[in-house]
Amino acid sequence: MAKITKVSPLAPAAFPDLPVIDGVTFSTVAAGVKYTGRTDVMLAHCVPGTTIAGTFTRSATRSAPVLDCQAKLGGPSDDGAAILVNSGNSNAFTGRNGLAATDAIVQATAKATGIPAARVFTASTGVIGEPLPFERITAKLSELNDTLSADRMADAARAIMTTDTYPKGASATCDIHGKEVKIAGFAKGSGMIAPDMATMLVYIFTDARINQAALQALTSQACDETFNCITVDSDTSTSDSLLVAATGTSGVDATSDPGFQAALHDVMLDLAHQVVRDGEGATKFVEIVVTGAVDNASAKTHGLSIANSPLVKTAIAGEDPNWGRVVMAVGKSGAPADRDTLSIWFGDTLVAENGWVSPDYVEADAAAHMKSDHIRIRVDCGMGDGTATVWTCDLTHGYIEINADYRS
Amino acid sequence: MAKITKVSPLAPAAFPDLPVIDGVTFSTVAAGVKYTGRTDVMLAHCVPGTTIAGTFTRSATRSAPVLDCQAKLGGPSDDGAAILVNSGNSNAFTGRNGLAATDAIVQATAKATGIPAARVFTASTGVIGEPLPFERITAKLSELNDTLSADRMADAARAIMTTDTYPKGASATCDIHGKEVKIAGFAKGSGMIAPDMATMLVYIFTDARINQAALQALTSQACDETFNCITVDSDTSTSDSLLVAATGTSGVDATSDPGFQAALHDVMLDLAHQVVRDGEGATKFVEIVVTGAVDNASAKTHGLSIANSPLVKTAIAGEDPNWGRVVMAVGKSGAPADRDTLSIWFGDTLVAENGWVSPDYVEADAAAHMKSDHIRIRVDCGMGDGTATVWTCDLTHGYIEINADYRS
Repeated sequence: MAKITKVSPLAPAAFPDLPVIDGVTFSTVAAGVKYTGRTDVMLAHCVPGTTIAGTFTRSATRSAPVLDCQAKLGGPSDDGAAILVNSGNSNAFTGRNGLAATDAIVQATAKATGIPAARVFTASTGVIGEPLPFERITAKLSELNDTLSADRMADAARAIMTTDTYPKGASATCDIHGKEVKIAGFAKGSGMIAPDMATMLVYIFTDARINQAALQALTSQACDETFNCITVDSDTSTSDSLLVAATGTSGVDATSDPGFQAALHDVMLDLAHQVVRDGEGATKFVEIVVTGAVDNASAKTHGLSIANSPLVKTAIAGEDPNWGRVVMAVGKSGAPADRDTLSIWFGDTLVAENGWVSPDYVEADAAAHMKSDHIRIRVDCGMGDGTATVWTCDLTHGYIEINADYRS
Repeated sequence: MAKITKVSPLAPAAFPDLPVIDGVTFSTVAAGVKYTGRTDVMLAHCVPGTTIAGTFTRSATRSAPVLDCQAKLGGPSDDGAAILVNSGNSNAFTGRNGLAATDAIVQATAKATGIPAARVFTASTGVIGEPLPFERITAKLSELNDTLSADRMADAARAIMTTDTYPKGASATCDIHGKEVKIAGFAKGSGMIAPDMATMLVYIFTDARINQAALQALTSQACDETFNCITVDSDTSTSDSLLVAATGTSGVDATSDPGFQAALHDVMLDLAHQVVRDGEGATKFVEIVVTGAVDNASAKTHGLSIANSPLVKTAIAGEDPNWGRVVMAVGKSGAPADRDTLSIWFGDTLVAENGWVSPDYVEADAAAHMKSDHIRIRVDCGMGDGTATVWTCDLTHGYIEINADYRS
């Protein structure tokens, strides 16, 4: 395993101050699942009444904990909920033993916390295909339950990191009928990131009161506009999980509140961007806006084709305003495109229009933008009203270094 | 532009001796389209009666010469044919000027060779989106026509190279009713390679007699099994063209001959493998065999998902038998898969079966295979009879070096 000691140059200056979400407590422990000298298990405990929504990888080879969580979503919220996550081993592609390991962790968590097994959600992240030494985790559950504390969300964010170079947290508040509702959460993920959830684990908590069906609808929509619009390397993990837990402790019903919807979206977008900013080897954060496509789905298809193109991503790494590769990526995406109505901008510089380089284009302008660590590419298809925005990072030697050596 | 001086470690020992194909002559010239100190234009001249079949990129942003060639396929063969190819500039995404440049080259070729413009096929490969200085090419057409020679196919292969580190040629013969028929051809391509033709130019010549419709059917089928089964970086070019020219000069009708079909397939497969072996930065040739899928199309989908996965490709670069990433790639492909019926081999070593690591698996065995420069990965889906084989290369620092600096 490669030693990853350097924090991404695109990392935020500091981990944000996250508000305490009333009704949720956290604890972490160093169980030695694989790593040494760091925490690798986190427990989140949610009070009775907490509703849980989630989205998961669409991989056909989902891990045991993902299948277990999916089966449990939408269950009764009377008895609270627990979330138990380990890093170091994903318990994915571990056959019957994988199911047994998940079950052992669920049962031990239920026993330690007093929360029914049907309300214990687990996740495992790390190496695929190796047996999860679940006994190391179950041995720590009493300690985890005994050390739960409302102010340890940042510790929880750290415990679930794998190749991440920094922990990722975000929060927002919104005002509903004069009362404040809080949302705060954290995420892990840096490689194997692509739409349909990628290798990400995301846990978001709010003190809003909202029924499960409404929370699920909001969560799915926000996920489509945030986590499903980011890509690091087009690879999709077997373990991706996002859970949103609403404790209801604020007493404020957020069910149809547009402010709550926007705040939840903002927290997810912040975390999604942080995942891209920690993309393996990333040196540039890249925003790709597609407009003028025949519809929104086509715009997203074009955007992801650009974002996933190794030739586009290496050109960005090389600070080369190589719009020819953008044309190539639009052409191969499979969505409708017309070469002669395409326009392309790098930053604010119109590079190409009407099927060719813009008459006013001065390469130095686009080249100057490419020096930035926040690259903006805009493509207008000139065909309709479809729009989409996706986010990615560049493809660098760092990606090769991390992935040619690290057994993930 | 990066200086690419090192020949791929996977290159064949030498360019093969290609037989003369009666009825075809070649010439090359250094026109200075972009490169200096090397040839960059080739002309192939085919005798009257030559039928031409072809396959082309499916990109929605095809280059002007591709559109021109596609319109001409299937035309009458009475007046022979000419093929004119330049490297250094792809004349792709060059708007109306691109069409005008193609037209100027076609007309000049027709004038110099006496072959009607409707039978002049052109291609351009190199940088996208910059105006093609076609006058440099048209100025050389008399010289090209005056120096045509039957034994210059190897020179032609060299003239069309871009980031290729070696020229690519292949040949085969077959016996039809006691008479020998020859096939020989050449290709260029090293990056932006993916199914649906990729950044490749391929020209194959035979002295067989075969009508255009039959030749087209054979060509399309062989292309599906060869060039459309290779991938370097999942990127698809705007310029990919493959032409097969049958001069008929042997007098032997190959229309329904299975030996001819097999020989044409062999030449294409040889050239396709050489393209992969010249994959940008490649250090390992990778063969991926998928069996037991629900159908052949699903097998190919799984195979290409594995072959295009940056995480699989970097693991191979790192000589890591990381079968977890293979599972991941099968899971994300979109084709049907069942985690618990998957089996995976690296070389001859059964690594995983029944949804988990094989009980007899010894990592040292798979690790030893990964040291080879010819990696074989086999995946059995355990679901049906669908099979496919695809070929790719690893993803290395060399790919980043070439593509972060080279304006292709």
